Amino acid sequence: MNGNFVYANPTKLYFGDEAQKNLAKALSGFGKKVLFTYGGGSIKHNGVYDDVMASLKAAGKEVIELPGVMSNPTVDKLNEGRRIARENNVDFILAVGGGSVIDYAKAVSVSAWYDGDAWERFWVKQDDPLKGERIIPVGAVLTMAGTGSEMNGGSVITNHAANMKIGKVFGEEVMPKFAVLNPRYTFSLPHRQMVAGIFDTMSHIMEQYFSGDDDSTSDYLAEGLMRSVIASSLVAVKEPENYEARSNLMWSSTWALNTLIGEGKSQDWMVHMIGHAIGAYTNATHGMTLSGISVAYYRHVMKHAIGRFARFARVVWAIPTDGKTDEQLASEGIDALATWIKTIGAASEITSLGVTPDMLEGIADATIILDAGYEKLTRQEIIEILRASL
Amino acid sequence: MNGNFVYANPTKLYFGDEAQKNLAKALSGFGKKVLFTYGGGSIKHNGVYDDVMASLKAAGKEVIELPGVMSNPTVDKLNEGRRIARENNVDFILAVGGGSVIDYAKAVSVSAWYDGDAWERFWVKQDDPLKGERIIPVGAVLTMAGTGSEMNGGSVITNHAANMKIGKVFGEEVMPKFAVLNPRYTFSLPHRQMVAGIFDTMSHIMEQYFSGDDDSTSDYLAEGLMRSVIASSLVAVKEPENYEARSNLMWSSTWALNTLIGEGKSQDWMVHMIGHAIGAYTNATHGMTLSGISVAYYRHVMKHAIGRFARFARVVWAIPTDGKTDEQLASEGIDALATWIKTIGAASEITSLGVTPDMLEGIADATIILDAGYEKLTRQEIIEILRASL
Repeated sequence: MNGNFVYANPTKLYFGDEAQKNLAKALSGFGKKVLFTYGGGSIKHNGVYDDVMASLKAAGKEVIELPGVMSNPTVDKLNEGRRIARENNVDFILAVGGGSVIDYAKAVSVSAWYDGDAWERFWVKQDDPLKGERIIPVGAVLTMAGTGSEMNGGSVITNHAANMKIGKVFGEEVMPKFAVLNPRYTFSLPHRQMVAGIFDTMSHIMEQYFSGDDDSTSDYLAEGLMRSVIASSLVAVKEPENYEARSNLMWSSTWALNTLIGEGKSQDWMVHMIGHAIGAYTNATHGMTLSGISVAYYRHVMKHAIGRFARFARVVWAIPTDGKTDEQLASEGIDALATWIKTIGAASEITSLGVTPDMLEGIADATIILDAGYEKLTRQEIIEILRASL
Repeated sequence: MNGNFVYANPTKLYFGDEAQKNLAKALSGFGKKVLFTYGGGSIKHNGVYDDVMASLKAAGKEVIELPGVMSNPTVDKLNEGRRIARENNVDFILAVGGGSVIDYAKAVSVSAWYDGDAWERFWVKQDDPLKGERIIPVGAVLTMAGTGSEMNGGSVITNHAANMKIGKVFGEEVMPKFAVLNPRYTFSLPHRQMVAGIFDTMSHIMEQYFSGDDDSTSDYLAEGLMRSVIASSLVAVKEPENYEARSNLMWSSTWALNTLIGEGKSQDWMVHMIGHAIGAYTNATHGMTLSGISVAYYRHVMKHAIGRFARFARVVWAIPTDGKTDEQLASEGIDALATWIKTIGAASEITSLGVTPDMLEGIADATIILDAGYEKLTRQEIIEILRASL
């Protein structure tokens, strides 16, 4: 375990097919005025809205509804939420939905009482930590597994005018106070959204795993999570209502990005950076932007860490080692990843997401280049990875 | 992930070779009077005592020292601590040591302000939860990896008069508020204690893993942790000052028993129950009582879960499967466990721990028999397992 770090995660998780029964009690520790935010209204058709409203009522809350959070929440929508939160002086924000809704709730949470330009202050300025800003506590009811937003301090916001999609990672004070995780709440999700969430989870794990070549417990935990995600994904794509598979996918996605498996590691995150730039250009589903470029990306960086990619093949994909060189194994591991992407029905390329060759330079320019992982990419390398992903 | 459960773990972990630099700040959130408890005084020879005292001074605390916590903390010692905590009206308990010291601190924490017989109320009565008792918050500075006490609500107390050693698992309100985990603080530990801690960790994982045969993410995480513990143990027994290995062992031990890998599982814990009974009779080192009986125990229950034991062989020990039946694989997995116990120098039998044949019936009588795992053992089966472990 490299370096010095602090692990602190106060989010309380209520898990199971009756998890929502804890919601009223979980809410009771917070103030009376609750901003109840959600997405396009699918929760009104699958019973989740009614469950939540019943809990809010049982807890004696005054509810202000804020629907219409889009799948890539925008600065304009954020500003609407900030205004509503302030005007109503809300005590708590309850996010009901997937990662976009929870990211959005956290964005409102930190910026509602900030007087300036929230986009500039909290997203464009990545290295500017919170300085005692007033924060509105957030809770979550999860309806889509994948982003891990329910147990971390991350919040991704999109600015279409600037063609920018930026994720900010806040600390423990912004993490949800609690999250209700009922795997059955994810059953009515469209198949494509489920698959996107599965790949998002896998990508979170890989982007922490593929950095360094030390012997870290975090990598062993990551391998366990990847094996579980792969096993359950193969069941879930055939039987979307298989509770065991969906519950494993939900639990894995939470633990894939709640800081645990990244502790003591440098981490990479370039797939997410490129994926965000594609998302800003096309508004494509987040998980699909990641699957669309991952194979090309990992083939590109593999040369820097043959041992780690060979281990990925051996441990995660159980590829027999007999007589193979590490180079062969490493390559076969990425082949297995590519096959799995096809098998579960995630995007294998980015053309189907609306990316055209003339966009590549712009996407590369919109990509935030991190100095992490196995190499710091150049603009030209990003264009090559994008071209190989068309 | 079976069932409905709540995951809540508020312990903040400061990890790394400079972790103690956070101690003064961590203490600052609590009251002035600190009960500083530790063991036999080894911390006065390795610099840990001085580090802690400097932090306590920097934080402006009034310190009451309570040394002499033994490796299996007794009811008598507990009563001494309760008296001192009350007489001084302490605001906080800082435990500096291994699991015994931290268990002890938690025991004082919950029982100091209880007026009756603490042993009866909190340990003998297993199913009697806390009912708003006044709890003194606890923090920990860990000097021995193994028990996981630094991030859970467990507390094991020994009553020699009754030949009883009982572990009680309290909830999140009793978990340490923070734990300082500096792997270098474990370097001066006697070799035998390090090995006992390694097996204790492995046993915690196995006792959660060997229950059920469902496909649970918790089992995949457990496999990752076991693989990390095995890999690092083989380095650490040869190079006790290998920071990477010792840091992995420390981090693995914390995550092996902080509730994570047991979520959604029934769990077993009979090896700990028998081990506690041996400990009550012999005062033997906890981890060694577990290694001494584990091989016989798992050979005994293996028949109920051949598939799970075959998976253990394949995934955890990387035993080639070619042409083998699950029975063969399962048996080879336990062989690998037995070999590893010998390789790291843990106890392979219980005779060397002071157990004699005439004690077996008494130990069986002192064993709390749980109805969990793959079968509920009879008294006679416990005697057979003990006899096979002589």
